[in-house]
Amino acid sequence: MSIRIGILGYGNLGRGVECAIMQNPDMELVAVFTRRSPETVSIYTKTAAVCHVDELESWKDKIDVMILCGGSATDLPVQTPETVKLFNVVDSFDTHARIPEHFAAVDANAKQSGKVGIISVGWDPGMFSLMRMLSGAVLPEGKDYTFWGKGVSQGHSDAIRRIEGVKNAKQYTIPVDEALDRVRSGENPDLTTREKHIRECFVVAEDGADLEKIENEIKTMPNYFADYDTTVHFISEEELMRDHSGIPHGGFVIRSGKTGLNKENSHIIEYRLKLDSNPEFTSSVIVAYARAAYRLASEGVSGAKTVFDIAPCYLSEKSSEELRKTLL
Amino acid sequence: MSIRIGILGYGNLGRGVECAIMQNPDMELVAVFTRRSPETVSIYTKTAAVCHVDELESWKDKIDVMILCGGSATDLPVQTPETVKLFNVVDSFDTHARIPEHFAAVDANAKQSGKVGIISVGWDPGMFSLMRMLSGAVLPEGKDYTFWGKGVSQGHSDAIRRIEGVKNAKQYTIPVDEALDRVRSGENPDLTTREKHIRECFVVAEDGADLEKIENEIKTMPNYFADYDTTVHFISEEELMRDHSGIPHGGFVIRSGKTGLNKENSHIIEYRLKLDSNPEFTSSVIVAYARAAYRLASEGVSGAKTVFDIAPCYLSEKSSEELRKTLL
Repeated sequence: MSIRIGILGYGNLGRGVECAIMQNPDMELVAVFTRRSPETVSIYTKTAAVCHVDELESWKDKIDVMILCGGSATDLPVQTPETVKLFNVVDSFDTHARIPEHFAAVDANAKQSGKVGIISVGWDPGMFSLMRMLSGAVLPEGKDYTFWGKGVSQGHSDAIRRIEGVKNAKQYTIPVDEALDRVRSGENPDLTTREKHIRECFVVAEDGADLEKIENEIKTMPNYFADYDTTVHFISEEELMRDHSGIPHGGFVIRSGKTGLNKENSHIIEYRLKLDSNPEFTSSVIVAYARAAYRLASEGVSGAKTVFDIAPCYLSEKSSEELRKTLL
Repeated sequence: MSIRIGILGYGNLGRGVECAIMQNPDMELVAVFTRRSPETVSIYTKTAAVCHVDELESWKDKIDVMILCGGSATDLPVQTPETVKLFNVVDSFDTHARIPEHFAAVDANAKQSGKVGIISVGWDPGMFSLMRMLSGAVLPEGKDYTFWGKGVSQGHSDAIRRIEGVKNAKQYTIPVDEALDRVRSGENPDLTTREKHIRECFVVAEDGADLEKIENEIKTMPNYFADYDTTVHFISEEELMRDHSGIPHGGFVIRSGKTGLNKENSHIIEYRLKLDSNPEFTSSVIVAYARAAYRLASEGVSGAKTVFDIAPCYLSEKSSEELRKTLL
């Protein structure tokens, strides 16, 4: 019998989850829940229902794992603790600073309902967190570096769009090659914000807008751009659609450590992601952890979990025997 | 109270384990066991005993985890199942094809003694296995690539040393850059043995040896060299000692996968190790898993385990709360 999955929230991430489920033969999408009128939402999976979010409770016994595809700012802090009262859940909560309180809220409700809630799944937080943790455990004397990009930052693109005279914009975060090379050399440099990443902006201005003023407003924007070397390109709406409509992302987690009686030997552990589609890769990670949520729940486990708490074999469709034989 | 560690076998790996323990404040080396006369073995840790391997049983209650540092050919197939009758153990058994039978032998004895036996820990098998498994679970439609090097292969160096007229030799396995680039491009190539790695040999010949004959014997040696592009350099013993005395290694695990409704998006997951000292890095991984063996045993778990079975948080000295707060 396949693992019955529900999706709550059907944007980029929800669609990515739907596609990822199709690649996993042990899973089946049963229903998508939306705040919109269900008849206005069209999904790929012919066999799945589209329901209003108000109907969640009636699906209690028909869904094994609910995947929460809302945003971290306002949706998930409410949705995850609420939904775990009814279902095993996985979310991609990514406000790093608020993870402890989110974990506590989900854990309390999950323990009460006897469900599993895996939070902060994706690539950062998610696979990148796992790599930081594993590499640090293996090389306790060392230093961690995380670089993001080349990729589109939605937050920074939105910030540009809010500037007067800007019609549309796309912002790429790009790691600085020299910084990467210094880290890979084992030199363990202290790097400033400006030394690690550059920001490249593609901006469509309104007709007659003051381009110089826009460029200056971007480059001096506190938190978002002021601490970086930023380049701004003004392009047409057509160029933006043609050349910048993708949502690529990725990055690097590097640990540089020393071993030996006198720390005479250097080691570099580097994990790199190069992703054509940020939401689709995030979805693929989430779906693997949905399998883990199902299995843990089947074993009677309950409570909040993160990528740190889950034995890797729970993520794979393969049996432990097959994993040992083919991948160890 | 710290985790009390024993080391069985004191060669390169055993010494690496001893150094790694010094970097982990929650662990303490209690005793080293050797087949040699203990008085001939000098270790770094002043507070630890050096004992003959025959004394193992008398340490039953004084050691939490025994780390087995013997070889995979003849030592570990016997030592691991035997030792797990007395102690929680970790080994680095690396004969990939014989892992299922080794697992079964360790599992049977470990379940009977109530101990934990973690097998095949290191970087390959070990961290590389973990990456193959995780990446495959996240991107089920894709292809795995493992490249080794640049690094010293002991097996290949030994094979050269057995040739008549060879006094000493060091062999480097080197991944082919073009192959790596093709994999990273998402092209998913089928690569032959020859296309993936080259082999570079540094050979010290006996006085008056037939160099042409040696070179030919190396290059045509079945299994070891015949399927590769191999270069042979004859150098002096002094040059070998000066330039090739290290034991560097490393490599790449790359998964290239597709997502999307029509598999229109490509993703590359790349894990790279660049290691100054192969045995010291292997030791560092083993020591992190020794912590996991201790914790699992404290929870009442018993039986054989591999890197696939162990939740990452068990490897870290940090509490789960701290991990979530600082690394997620």
